[in-house]
Amino acid sequence: MNTRGRHLLVEYTGCDASVLDDLKRIEALMNQAAKAARTNIVASVFQPFEPQGVTGVVVVEESHLSIHTWPEHGYAAVDFFTCGEAIPEMAHRVLSEGLRAERAEVIFVDRGISHIGPSMRMRSHSTEHYGERAYERASEHADIRAIEPMMAAHRS
Amino acid sequence: MNTRGRHLLVEYTGCDASVLDDLKRIEALMNQAAKAARTNIVASVFQPFEPQGVTGVVVVEESHLSIHTWPEHGYAAVDFFTCGEAIPEMAHRVLSEGLRAERAEVIFVDRGISHIGPSMRMRSHSTEHYGERAYERASEHADIRAIEPMMAAHRS
Repeated sequence: MNTRGRHLLVEYTGCDASVLDDLKRIEALMNQAAKAARTNIVASVFQPFEPQGVTGVVVVEESHLSIHTWPEHGYAAVDFFTCGEAIPEMAHRVLSEGLRAERAEVIFVDRGISHIGPSMRMRSHSTEHYGERAYERASEHADIRAIEPMMAAHRS
Repeated sequence: MNTRGRHLLVEYTGCDASVLDDLKRIEALMNQAAKAARTNIVASVFQPFEPQGVTGVVVVEESHLSIHTWPEHGYAAVDFFTCGEAIPEMAHRVLSEGLRAERAEVIFVDRGISHIGPSMRMRSHSTEHYGERAYERASEHADIRAIEPMMAAHRS
């Protein structure tokens, strides 16, 4: 079996604290993320933390996805590590939206045996800001509200 | 709660294939590693893979430890991610010895919210070779064997 793996280390900040503290919702999001990444779920463990927060891991045939949340800081530390043909970027998309993050910092590491040098390679280290995207969505909603009365007027 | 975390991504190569394919032994090693790192075990999941290999995660109060093995390549991809006062380096030591690895490639990433720039920082990326250490051990044994007859002769 090919050892090639792709590992995304992600720090989500500015997240919705109520989501970060909702064990069932976090578990559902992580399972949705595993499916979006086209992985096959083997088992999962999710635990609440006192006084708040959630920790959890989804073990998949293609490796694992993990999450640890700090609602009091609007922060989650997440890993998407997949081998084979899975697409960890899709899992990242599910989480960034599901947690309502304002920002994600992402380190992308290639893993797996290499016979020509180091196994691991940091492919990128980037920061994504979702403020504008959230603004665009708000604008779309505003447009719809503005357009609907016009369409209603047109129909009448 | 402090969000500061330390994450070791480790690629072990030249490992003992029989250990990598032994689910009970891998599970015991990972639990031993979690204790050595001074973490508190919450739950764990270990699964065999067909035709060979093991995948497993130990969820700890301080985050998680994970392992995925490819016995046919003498290779294991391991993560030690701990928050608080845990010592992931100690877990790494348990695994490097327990898997009888010839080499470990280690990326050390600092994680956790930072208010002065990026959250994550790659602290180091290094390769450790255990051939010499194994040689030193063999030498120690050789010395003991050489010394013992001398001591026996001295005693007689």
